Amino acid sequence: MSNAPHFGSHPMFQGFGRPVRQEVDLRDCEVEGQIPPELEGSFYRVGPDYQYPPRLPNIPFDGEGHLCLFRFSGGRVDFRSRYVHTERYMAQAAAGRALYGTYRNPFTDEPAVAALSRGTANTNVFHHHGKLMVLKEDSPPVVVNPHTLETLDPVYRFGGQLTAETFTAHPKLDSDTGEMLGIAYEAKGLGSCDVACYSFNAQGQKTWEAWVKVPYAGMLHDFAVTRSYIAFLVVPMVTDIERMRAGHVHFAWDSTLPTWLGVLRRGGDGSDIRWFKGPERCATHVMGAFEDGTRLSIDMDMGLKNQFPFFPQRDDSPFDPVAAQGHVVRLSVDLANKLRPGYDMETLYPHSGVLSRQDDRYHSVAYDVGFMPTLDMTAPFDARLAAALPFRPLNHWTRFDHSRRAATSWFVGPDSGVQEACFVPRNASAAEGEGYLIGVVNRFLEMRNDLVVLDAQRLNEGPIATVRMPTRLPAQVHGWWVPGTVVPATRL
Amino acid sequence: MSNAPHFGSHPMFQGFGRPVRQEVDLRDCEVEGQIPPELEGSFYRVGPDYQYPPRLPNIPFDGEGHLCLFRFSGGRVDFRSRYVHTERYMAQAAAGRALYGTYRNPFTDEPAVAALSRGTANTNVFHHHGKLMVLKEDSPPVVVNPHTLETLDPVYRFGGQLTAETFTAHPKLDSDTGEMLGIAYEAKGLGSCDVACYSFNAQGQKTWEAWVKVPYAGMLHDFAVTRSYIAFLVVPMVTDIERMRAGHVHFAWDSTLPTWLGVLRRGGDGSDIRWFKGPERCATHVMGAFEDGTRLSIDMDMGLKNQFPFFPQRDDSPFDPVAAQGHVVRLSVDLANKLRPGYDMETLYPHSGVLSRQDDRYHSVAYDVGFMPTLDMTAPFDARLAAALPFRPLNHWTRFDHSRRAATSWFVGPDSGVQEACFVPRNASAAEGEGYLIGVVNRFLEMRNDLVVLDAQRLNEGPIATVRMPTRLPAQVHGWWVPGTVVPATRL
Repeated sequence: MSNAPHFGSHPMFQGFGRPVRQEVDLRDCEVEGQIPPELEGSFYRVGPDYQYPPRLPNIPFDGEGHLCLFRFSGGRVDFRSRYVHTERYMAQAAAGRALYGTYRNPFTDEPAVAALSRGTANTNVFHHHGKLMVLKEDSPPVVVNPHTLETLDPVYRFGGQLTAETFTAHPKLDSDTGEMLGIAYEAKGLGSCDVACYSFNAQGQKTWEAWVKVPYAGMLHDFAVTRSYIAFLVVPMVTDIERMRAGHVHFAWDSTLPTWLGVLRRGGDGSDIRWFKGPERCATHVMGAFEDGTRLSIDMDMGLKNQFPFFPQRDDSPFDPVAAQGHVVRLSVDLANKLRPGYDMETLYPHSGVLSRQDDRYHSVAYDVGFMPTLDMTAPFDARLAAALPFRPLNHWTRFDHSRRAATSWFVGPDSGVQEACFVPRNASAAEGEGYLIGVVNRFLEMRNDLVVLDAQRLNEGPIATVRMPTRLPAQVHGWWVPGTVVPATRL
Repeated sequence: MSNAPHFGSHPMFQGFGRPVRQEVDLRDCEVEGQIPPELEGSFYRVGPDYQYPPRLPNIPFDGEGHLCLFRFSGGRVDFRSRYVHTERYMAQAAAGRALYGTYRNPFTDEPAVAALSRGTANTNVFHHHGKLMVLKEDSPPVVVNPHTLETLDPVYRFGGQLTAETFTAHPKLDSDTGEMLGIAYEAKGLGSCDVACYSFNAQGQKTWEAWVKVPYAGMLHDFAVTRSYIAFLVVPMVTDIERMRAGHVHFAWDSTLPTWLGVLRRGGDGSDIRWFKGPERCATHVMGAFEDGTRLSIDMDMGLKNQFPFFPQRDDSPFDPVAAQGHVVRLSVDLANKLRPGYDMETLYPHSGVLSRQDDRYHSVAYDVGFMPTLDMTAPFDARLAAALPFRPLNHWTRFDHSRRAATSWFVGPDSGVQEACFVPRNASAAEGEGYLIGVVNRFLEMRNDLVVLDAQRLNEGPIATVRMPTRLPAQVHGWWVPGTVVPATRL
């Protein structure tokens, strides 16, 4: 216990990438503008924030989950942030150092932690059946108190109902029944091709379970749901056990492999799954999905090749930042056509971006409105930022209205960047896409963050309110809104 | 409750001057270098950090006390910061806005708070008779828990023993008996010329009380103590009730007034007080004091005129930044000489600076070693910083060895600035000045702070350890070290 931690000079840990680590309470945040009175509830966001310096090489995604809460109440905003107390976090806190090796690679761990969950709870937050769950797709959810953020259950198996070893970071809501749907990949252990599908009702009782096998094991970060189907795209971000035994991270990109779109009926036993083949593509997030007669469509932001510069190429070829650029692509299949072996693709917009979202009330039904952080390379870019950053940050939030094929954007400014945005309906009965778009932006030059509130129907008019944070916040992967009608919006 | 706070664009609140407001827990801080094993204990520091935007004009000193704790334990450092829950803080928290007017001016307050303490607990921290006290010289101490920093008593009157309405922010320790000594000015109310002097034993029982009157009411921020005497310098930073009624801050500088050095015997009733007259000078902090036969000497950092640019000149003349520069000056009087009406002054070193400190075990006895943040205008200065800051920050910590009239310094670097330093003896029996010099420095360009640990006998060798903070900390006026033998250095 004599060597205090230090993150050193590794490029991953410089500037905005330095772990924040501090846990914060900030009552009555500074606000520029006016918080709309309808905005009553909790915005949760989570991301990786290293507790201790890892053995390098490692990647940003292996940091411990650090959960933030912006509580909107009566026109005021309170803020709280806490590390999620996973089994991993607690073991490392007791040891005063990192005990786990590299990203999702148990071969690199110290033997003492073999019996503990490796989950970092650093990817997404979801609220259902009275539980706020923090999610990492390699492990079961972690349940936390929605007000104090105190960890209540570090390995939540839905009261013993979760038969898989893992659970997705992107659960979906059935728009009709309110059920929670989820998949689990590598569900029978490291590198397994087993995928489980579940639904749980509003009381948390399991209402469906089915098991299928994927053509090859790899990242299955998100999935699509409609009234009748579950679908997911298997992309060549493969789980490579041999490379893991040699000390590398969990995934590597294999350009020789095709993609496979799997479609199975909800409520069945999974034996009906159909596979539609496609070319090399990378797609991580689903914007929305819908059925139209016998045609099933899934909108994802998709690049031609590996979109993660920190995940290696299996053939050691260089990362291609142009081929990595994502666009909103509609994947579709006619389920009545038994002859066509592949899926169709249509690029819907010229905008480049990642981290698609939608109005979350429309997960399983026909939808019209999507949101995505985008990068417009023609927008002004501060020269100081250009000199300091290794990449150009996403600089717009863009709304897509598919029925009109129309896009509107908000530009964050030449010295800033946007994180994922989250849509908040104006009220429970608001039309699709009527409400607010909220999320955190990076003020790189001031080493600060702001939370920005936009009218989702008037992005181009700029912020209605800006919650001005005094310092940097922990990183974010995803965020989730819980209205005050579900978790009371009491002041913190 | 609909208008959330915002500090706007006032120059006082930009950059490093923006209130931090967030309360932080940070376990196992990043450390560069090695924390010495002897450094086992708590470094407390406090300063003003506005809870709500004040009615302007106001000054930085009117922000609410925000207390920080660096806990050194087994070579590791944990950090915690909390607002002090003064009566003022709690009333404003309930109202969701500022209720008090300008700096130490009750005429500008809202009527609802007239019965509450105006104390902000933002100036210093002191530990004695088992109590950690946070101090503001216009009000009684606030007692807080030394581990959680939770406020235990917002108006501590020493169990009813404090007869004055105020209490100093600079108590002293009797080096022989361990008694705590303190003065109180404006002790019978706003603008009163009454000064009370106290001592309290290790059990907190009052062992001495005396009352005297000063020639005019004004700032009496610090005082000196020797085995036989208490002494303080009355400077022309006057309490101006008429200006206060017109809405101005508590103090104004009156160049027409002389200074008066008051000396009284400890243990007496105060009637023996003698006054020694001097020219216009500004001196805020005592480095140390001693008796040598009948000669009493008091070392202060002293400027020719007003040293506080935000306190107005009574004659509306402009602030003079050159005349404001402080130097270590020895004030002395021969108490056997009944004829000399004034005091002698000797400037001991060429170094310019403020915020003098010493080895705190030597408050009441002859001392040799002092410390002070200093400004060397010939040191390198980063051009970006020069463009961004309205003033040049203090850039060295300097140690003075009076017996050799020798000074040694550590330069914080061209892009940084130093706050007050605090001396920590290597152990209870260490020689004077043998140990560590610790304190917080500003990394302006990164909008961060570090806590730096130096060998107090080898300042020029640079930091032994640097505790790297991820973000900005609340401002500091003063800090205080409490060894682990007094408050157990348990991990936070």
